[in-house]
This record gives sequence, C-alpha cells and structure tokens, in this order.
Amino acid sequence: MDPKSLMKQASIRFDIITLFPQIFPGYLGESLLSKSIEQGLVEVYTHDMRDWSEDKHNKVDARPYGGGPGMLIQVQPTVACVEAVRGLVEDPGELILLSPQGQVLKQSVVAELSQARRLILLCGRYEGFDQRVIDILRPREISLGDFVLNGGEVAAMAIVDAVIRLVPGVLGDERSSEEDSFSDEALLEFPHYTRPREYRGLAVPEVLLSGNHQQIAAWRTQQRLQRTAERRSDLLE
Amino acid sequence: MDPKSLMKQASIRFDIITLFPQIFPGYLGESLLSKSIEQGLVEVYTHDMRDWSEDKHNKVDARPYGGGPGMLIQVQPTVACVEAVRGLVEDPGELILLSPQGQVLKQSVVAELSQARRLILLCGRYEGFDQRVIDILRPREISLGDFVLNGGEVAAMAIVDAVIRLVPGVLGDERSSEEDSFSDEALLEFPHYTRPREYRGLAVPEVLLSGNHQQIAAWRTQQRLQRTAERRSDLLE
Repeated sequence: MDPKSLMKQASIRFDIITLFPQIFPGYLGESLLSKSIEQGLVEVYTHDMRDWSEDKHNKVDARPYGGGPGMLIQVQPTVACVEAVRGLVEDPGELILLSPQGQVLKQSVVAELSQARRLILLCGRYEGFDQRVIDILRPREISLGDFVLNGGEVAAMAIVDAVIRLVPGVLGDERSSEEDSFSDEALLEFPHYTRPREYRGLAVPEVLLSGNHQQIAAWRTQQRLQRTAERRSDLLE
Repeated sequence: MDPKSLMKQASIRFDIITLFPQIFPGYLGESLLSKSIEQGLVEVYTHDMRDWSEDKHNKVDARPYGGGPGMLIQVQPTVACVEAVRGLVEDPGELILLSPQGQVLKQSVVAELSQARRLILLCGRYEGFDQRVIDILRPREISLGDFVLNGGEVAAMAIVDAVIRLVPGVLGDERSSEEDSFSDEALLEFPHYTRPREYRGLAVPEVLLSGNHQQIAAWRTQQRLQRTAERRSDLLE
C-alpha cells in the first residue's frame, strides 16, 4: 500500500443520520469545513432514515401509543439505518443521539468527542424516537442545552463545528483553539481590538499599542477575570 | 388597506448578519421552516457584512492589536451593516450577538425572544469582533453553551429553530411545544412508543395500550420524574 494513502486518511469521520439531509450541504460548503474536507482531515456523510423504511411509501413516523400530540420516529427504520451505516467501514464509531434528555454539551465533552475517529450523529424530529431505538442501540445522548429544537440537525452541526476545531491541522494556527473561552481554564475571553485605532471617538486601549508583551498579557488576564466575574460568576466557583 | 394583508403580516422577522450567508439556504428550505416562511409566519433574511466593507477588496478582518493568534472582524463594516439592516423596516428589532461571552441560551430566553417582532442575529467568525462593535451597538449577547464554535451561524440557526416553535401557527398542534422538555416545568420528557407493538422482543409498556388515560398520565409523570432524577438532578433543585 502506498504510505501516502495512510497519511491522507481522514482524522475524523462524521455520519449524520437524519430525515432532512438537504439541510447540510450549505453548511458543509462553508469555508473552514469545506477546506478541512478537501484536505482529508474531516469526512462528513449524511444518510436519510427514510431509505431504510419497510413501508411502501417510505413512511417513518407514527402516532404515539397512549395518546398525545405529534408523531414519533419508528424503531424499525432507525435501527436498520444505524446498523447499515455502522457497517459501512470497519470502525463502528461512537453513536450519538442528539436529545434534550442527554448530557449537556460543554467543551470537555467536545474535547472527548474529538478523540474519536468516527462519530455517528442520530438526529430526531417531531416528538422524537420510539424508546426502543435507545434501548437497542444504546447511543450516547447529548443535549445542546436546556431548550427545545425542532430536530437534532442544528445540534449535530454544532457538534461537527465544535469538534473539527480540535482536529489537528483544521485551524491554521493551533493557538487559536487553545486561547478561546472554555478551552483551557473556565474564563471568558478578553476584549479584542483591531484597526482602525479610533472609530467614532472610541480608541484602542493604550496598553495594546505599547509593545510591552508582559503588560499586555497582564491586562488581558485581568480583563478575563473581570468579565467572568461580571457575567458568569458560576464559572469561577 | 385590505384587512387580510394585516393578518398575513409575518409574526417574526429574522435578519441574520454573517460572513457566510451560503450556510443558510439548505436549512431555510427545511420542511417546517420553509412551510412557516411560505405561510408568512416567519421571515428570514441573510446579509453579508462584506458588502459594507470600505476596503477595495471587501476585506473585513485584520490582526489584533497587542498580538495573538487569528483575525478579528473590524468595527467599520460591522457597524455599517447592522445600522443599514436595522433601517430596512420601521421596527429596529432587537440585536443579538452570538458569543460565548453571552447569557447561556435556555428555554426561558427562547420564550422571551419569541415575543419580539424582529430579531437581528449578528454572527462572528475567527477570533470574534473588535470590542467597539459591542460598545457602539450594545447587542444582547447570547451563548449557545460552554463550548466553542467556529462562528455564530450554527448558534443563530439554533435560535431561529427554537424560537419559531413558539410562534403561533408554526407547529401543527399547539400542544407539541407545551409538552416538550423545559417548556412548562423543568422535567425531562417521558419515553415514547409507537408501532409496532413488539420489535426484536421489546414490547410497548402495557399501560400505554390500556386506554386508561388516568393511568397513562400517572405513568408518564412518574417516568419524567424518574428520568430527571437519574439524568439531570440539577433541574430538580
């Protein structure tokens, strides 16, 4: 085997399972992500659960037993789709269900996910999945936060977006991800300034123009602490 | 004026300001959202900050004063773009900056935002905005959670996705949004089941097939409490 083909192996592969695959191409064509895909650092595939329905109209949803509003995604097409997608390559990957019932996403979870070689992201819609999808497939359940979305698709994009930043080579400058909020210590970022020096009477703080790197670093640390105390004192506890 | 034209007025208008407007069409064409747009319940427009750059190459980013990795979005094109977009219609709307420095999004914030007639969502990229963007425009800063994204675009989609659910008429069945996790009380949802009655040896719980609505309601409440205690005891505090 050509050793180059090993080196070109993608660092992480995402398989997104959804009823709305057409949501993703615009996002996948976005500059940083499309560059990472071109460079072979990231692979992203979408799969439509409808293709695994045994219903003659490719129906995948039905009303809940016991009554209640809305429709549920049925267990058969979901399990069949996940099992087929898992088998597409040797590494079965880690299955993640985007769900408000899951562990809330935070940077430490993103860091953990970025260690995987393959993530399969299962996106619900309507009132969610039949419980047996979870009982059979035993996904890791992750929630974007304590709010309700129309489906898992936007949450799946958030996971892809957050995880690829930590894939070596994706960001031009490795320091960028290390100095962001939440990446090293639980502090918010310091305020940033760029050209022009003055705009509508507002000037860039003198210290940033001083060239004194020690003073700049001290000012930035002080700003991070002050901002975090003012806005997110919970992070300092 | 034809009274019908008043009734057809959109319930909420989103203006998304971004450097990557091409991310959105796939998402906006998604079934529920595109239906809401067709019905005139929701309007969504995207605006490219680059169109307001005074640079001859439409450049909008520059290196930070005081050093550090990455690029910042400059104050001039951002302020000019937001001011122009605000002026497009009579209602200046509420300006929201998607930022990890902001208030963390939760369902009560979504409910508050859904009361607005117009939301302008300002999406950062790279290392973020020059601080004077915030000093001049005084946006409400909202964060999707304690993790770092490549830009505000996915967070803006999450806000649109969560807010439109609460716009009257968008969900077919109004009860759907009321019974979701986080919508009324801080409890996770009960497990759902739909056809078939048995799949791979896993049967639907008998109570859901009983037709006894009181017993079903009691079982569901008990399941919500049990799940919340097991997975998110913080919500019960």
